[in-house]
Amino acid sequence: MRFLSDNSATTCPAVMAAVAAANQATVSAYDGDEWSKRLDGAFSALFGTECRVWAVSTGTAANALGLACLTPPFGAIVCHQDAHIQVDEAGAPEFYAGGAKLLLCEGEGAKLSAASLAAGLSGLRGDVHQVRPSALSVSQATEYGRAYTPDELGQLCAEARARGLRVHMDGARFANVVAHLGCHPGDLTWRAGVDVLSFGAIKNGGMTAEAIVFFDPRLAAELPHRRKRAGQMPSKGRFQAAQLLAMITDDVWLHNARSANAGAQTIGAAAGPRLLHPVEANEVFLKLRPGEADRLRAAGFNFYDWGAAGSGEARFVVSWDQPARDVQSLSAALTALG
Amino acid sequence: MRFLSDNSATTCPAVMAAVAAANQATVSAYDGDEWSKRLDGAFSALFGTECRVWAVSTGTAANALGLACLTPPFGAIVCHQDAHIQVDEAGAPEFYAGGAKLLLCEGEGAKLSAASLAAGLSGLRGDVHQVRPSALSVSQATEYGRAYTPDELGQLCAEARARGLRVHMDGARFANVVAHLGCHPGDLTWRAGVDVLSFGAIKNGGMTAEAIVFFDPRLAAELPHRRKRAGQMPSKGRFQAAQLLAMITDDVWLHNARSANAGAQTIGAAAGPRLLHPVEANEVFLKLRPGEADRLRAAGFNFYDWGAAGSGEARFVVSWDQPARDVQSLSAALTALG
Amino acid sequence: MRFLSDNSATTCPAVMAAVAAANQATVSAYDGDEWSKRLDGAFSALFGTECRVWAVSTGTAANALGLACLTPPFGAIVCHQDAHIQVDEAGAPEFYAGGAKLLLCEGEGAKLSAASLAAGLSGLRGDVHQVRPSALSVSQATEYGRAYTPDELGQLCAEARARGLRVHMDGARFANVVAHLGCHPGDLTWRAGVDVLSFGAIKNGGMTAEAIVFFDPRLAAELPHRRKRAGQMPSKGRFQAAQLLAMITDDVWLHNARSANAGAQTIGAAAGPRLLHPVEANEVFLKLRPGEADRLRAAGFNFYDWGAAGSGEARFVVSWDQPARDVQSLSAALTALG
Amino acid sequence: MRFLSDNSATTCPAVMAAVAAANQATVSAYDGDEWSKRLDGAFSALFGTECRVWAVSTGTAANALGLACLTPPFGAIVCHQDAHIQVDEAGAPEFYAGGAKLLLCEGEGAKLSAASLAAGLSGLRGDVHQVRPSALSVSQATEYGRAYTPDELGQLCAEARARGLRVHMDGARFANVVAHLGCHPGDLTWRAGVDVLSFGAIKNGGMTAEAIVFFDPRLAAELPHRRKRAGQMPSKGRFQAAQLLAMITDDVWLHNARSANAGAQTIGAAAGPRLLHPVEANEVFLKLRPGEADRLRAAGFNFYDWGAAGSGEARFVVSWDQPARDVQSLSAALTALG
Repeated sequence: MRFLSDNSATTCPAVMAAVAAANQATVSAYDGDEWSKRLDGAFSALFGTECRVWAVSTGTAANALGLACLTPPFGAIVCHQDAHIQVDEAGAPEFYAGGAKLLLCEGEGAKLSAASLAAGLSGLRGDVHQVRPSALSVSQATEYGRAYTPDELGQLCAEARARGLRVHMDGARFANVVAHLGCHPGDLTWRAGVDVLSFGAIKNGGMTAEAIVFFDPRLAAELPHRRKRAGQMPSKGRFQAAQLLAMITDDVWLHNARSANAGAQTIGAAAGPRLLHPVEANEVFLKLRPGEADRLRAAGFNFYDWGAAGSGEARFVVSWDQPARDVQSLSAALTALG
Repeated sequence: MRFLSDNSATTCPAVMAAVAAANQATVSAYDGDEWSKRLDGAFSALFGTECRVWAVSTGTAANALGLACLTPPFGAIVCHQDAHIQVDEAGAPEFYAGGAKLLLCEGEGAKLSAASLAAGLSGLRGDVHQVRPSALSVSQATEYGRAYTPDELGQLCAEARARGLRVHMDGARFANVVAHLGCHPGDLTWRAGVDVLSFGAIKNGGMTAEAIVFFDPRLAAELPHRRKRAGQMPSKGRFQAAQLLAMITDDVWLHNARSANAGAQTIGAAAGPRLLHPVEANEVFLKLRPGEADRLRAAGFNFYDWGAAGSGEARFVVSWDQPARDVQSLSAALTALG
Repeated sequence: MRFLSDNSATTCPAVMAAVAAANQATVSAYDGDEWSKRLDGAFSALFGTECRVWAVSTGTAANALGLACLTPPFGAIVCHQDAHIQVDEAGAPEFYAGGAKLLLCEGEGAKLSAASLAAGLSGLRGDVHQVRPSALSVSQATEYGRAYTPDELGQLCAEARARGLRVHMDGARFANVVAHLGCHPGDLTWRAGVDVLSFGAIKNGGMTAEAIVFFDPRLAAELPHRRKRAGQMPSKGRFQAAQLLAMITDDVWLHNARSANAGAQTIGAAAGPRLLHPVEANEVFLKLRPGEADRLRAAGFNFYDWGAAGSGEARFVVSWDQPARDVQSLSAALTALG
Repeated sequence: MRFLSDNSATTCPAVMAAVAAANQATVSAYDGDEWSKRLDGAFSALFGTECRVWAVSTGTAANALGLACLTPPFGAIVCHQDAHIQVDEAGAPEFYAGGAKLLLCEGEGAKLSAASLAAGLSGLRGDVHQVRPSALSVSQATEYGRAYTPDELGQLCAEARARGLRVHMDGARFANVVAHLGCHPGDLTWRAGVDVLSFGAIKNGGMTAEAIVFFDPRLAAELPHRRKRAGQMPSKGRFQAAQLLAMITDDVWLHNARSANAGAQTIGAAAGPRLLHPVEANEVFLKLRPGEADRLRAAGFNFYDWGAAGSGEARFVVSWDQPARDVQSLSAALTALG
């Protein structure tokens, strides 16, 4: 049973159908088709404000492109030391932003706060010998499956703005947080002070498209140029745009996320004292006792060891299409561990 | 009737079916799935030599990534002055290669020769004040729809190798040339001296995947790192790999290309003295007389003006799925122009 | 006798004295010393407008840093195909500007005009698939020792500005042109529409410092950051600043340039029909007959062959400190060639 | 009295004389002169092994160029979190290395050990999602004026090499360590496993030149290209080379360093319990009690606050040319603080 990653899940029926429906000849290639042209309007309606939206092929590209629009090459991107952009994107943010530096902050559960941001930047003098902090990147959910509430996010963004930073959100699992908190998506983005969102779709039942959402159209001026130059402007753009449109039509994205979240809640409840972090999205982090990981794997559960070698930490990710029996089996197995 | 670009064509049934069939949950994400793992073997069989193959989302990414593996930042990529990588990729090769320079050569029909390559490099002294030519990029078919024969290509590559250049081929319409010449694909690549091929699929009935094919595995060592860093490593890699596998199974790529080529031949034959270049792929370049472009557009034909403003040049591209009646109508319209 | 390059000349007494005089302990390092602080004022007085000025260690750094402030990574720098920044700076402009492209124009004597600029850009459509022309770089004197008059420069800059380009001037031999034309330096820069000047000092009797002069302070905002990041902010900045101040004090720069120019005029006059370009600075370009280059070298004259191999073209550069007897000897030798 | 930085010191007489003596016309410009050609031999003799050596204009350029030869763009440079290359070079290493990432380790006194290196890299999996550690950069002396002994350095380099890292040394104050330990310079570099050294001269009585020293000539292949491209190849190279030659002739570098070190020892001894780190070069770090910094400044001593705001930490740097009375005054003042 697969709990390694939501990346290994299937594509949901709505997205598959949209891809099939988009298979029509068009007059214009690239972004000139009817699907691509609808992106801005559809996401603007979803978020309740005017948005500029582009499809890209990976979350890494979404993050790196968005950040490159906020950060000069001599600037710095501030993020948590466990952030995906720091740890797992092979230097893509540095590449796209022309060699900008990532400055790291700390925080329990990979969560930043105004205080941790202030601490992380406290050593900077603001002179020309040091890189200039230009953007804050926040992961929602965090790399430990934690959610920022609108209030928490608002305070963090306010601190960032007071320091002259623009705010980017890595929303690879944004849907899971919206579903978990039951907020309006605007409350977790532009109303709280977020400028650019990587709107994750692939982990949540999508196929090959993620969205970059700009809430401040002026910041987006460079995006089309940078996207083309990055090889991220597809010649048959309709196949990417259609996936994104399908995902936000009829609350598909929220339905998928709720399904995954529910499984994670069940598993978290069964984990007992092993649970490392509150379950606020579709990931469950456990601290297993010696031997337990082996027993679970022997029982057919796939999952990643996490944290330092030998720490016993483990990550279980529930996918949108996770069979209920997988969740029940894992919960039972955890309960049986005692 | 659409003759603007093969980018606006549909995705062929085989590729659509493969995408649908790939919609299974897998154990491993990224490139760890069964489809991605089959790429090397399938392309090695197709080309008759050991290949290393990766999927990317655009032809621009394929070109820029391949070239970045052949060129240091202080190097130069040599290409025709009309090459797509110079004219229409927004500086992607420079971006991916860390600021390498493109050095331009001339040649009728956007075609290079050993002589034009030598002429283009004749001014270089080889000292540290000048960029170091490191890679040659050849478009097959060229930007004017011309094909290099194996002999022509062999001579060009030999000249390049004698000068210490590795050879990259932009094969956005590689299938059309293979279909036109009836050659083995190996004869138009590694046997002639090509090191890396951007194997085009999207213009030829594909959807969202192109292939980078390395014929010298040692040159590919950096590719996985550069690809991830470029945001070109999809988390659900099977949906890209499946497209490529479908394309080269049962000669789908050649069937599609032959269909497009046949239409171009018909149109070329009807163009009479307007024909600017021999038709050797699926593009037809015409020099129209004053007023003719307007008449054709009024009759419902979409196509691009080409060349200098007011030159009367026009490009017609035939797609793999072009209705026969479109071709017949355009041919008749051209004939009727007298 | 050395006519290879003005780079091999000595440093003039005024600059040597200034370096010695600057050898005082200071309170502040980097640019915090008294010499560095005087740069803005001294150059502003020289040019008759408010300038922001920084010292760098090479002309290549001056050009590349200035251009990087005018050009986004997805932009293009437009210049003559023979421009030093294209031919002899090893890709430094591309490196500093994050991979921007150089777009090349033509023109007799390496001289651009509004018409050649327009022709060079005529093929661009202005869409996202192409790099965006952002800066024009003009060499004054050109790579063939030609000078732009204020009128010529004004027309060229007007055309550039009409196309949205900022203007950079590579003034490696700017002093020679000012001396030749007898203009106010403001007439050859900001009054004509130049935004940034690489003010050459080293070829004209300087030692290790060139100046970057911004005529529009708003464009200079990024310069201090980019300069530090490029390793071009010296810790003992006073030794560079003092050189520049000495150069523009008491017209040292013009005296040096006049001396070199006069020698070039003498040689040019002796060259007869061999002269390829009018002598408007301190360089003389000749087309020698077969055997003449060998005879001149046998007579002790060092100079570079120029142009295509076998073309017979040769470049003679007169330095500020060139002994009068060198000039007389060369003139006599040229006359003797008949 | 200036204890802010050794950057504000004067240039020593030997270097000034060498600059004056180098003011001769030469046949060849750039690195073709007699001084530049002697660099390799002179440094090879100094270090007791074959070296390749180039002059650059700043320590930042020396560090960034050396590291760029060791690190691919998708690589990582490992260093202490307080390293100058991380904190005070405005992102130059990232810029020169095409966007490589700096990975940070911890250690008392800004000193790394095999254990802290291992700990810093322990979280890396070695897959394509993460940057690839490629180079270790060690500061000798460290940013807190600490010295690595040959044994300590050997163990650190051995750990680095076992992990596939090449080793760079930021030797801005290398002379001070050699003077302090009384070692042969080879014992602190290539014999211990260092591949590339930034040989600092400017802080130690130099003027405008630092040296990059490669102990493995094969690693230096790219350096001339990268240096030219970075605008770090001066056209009158003899003025930089002459400074470096003078510095290592007749032990000038060691005499200068010994003078500065002696002053630091005196001050350190007077500091009593305030001393934060052992004095092993020419820097003294103190933890002052409330009010003491103000009293010292009121008495005419210039120095930097260090560490976190309000920590009371302060840095005093002794220069090679520091008047003995300055040292005596400061020592007396510290003693008087009680």
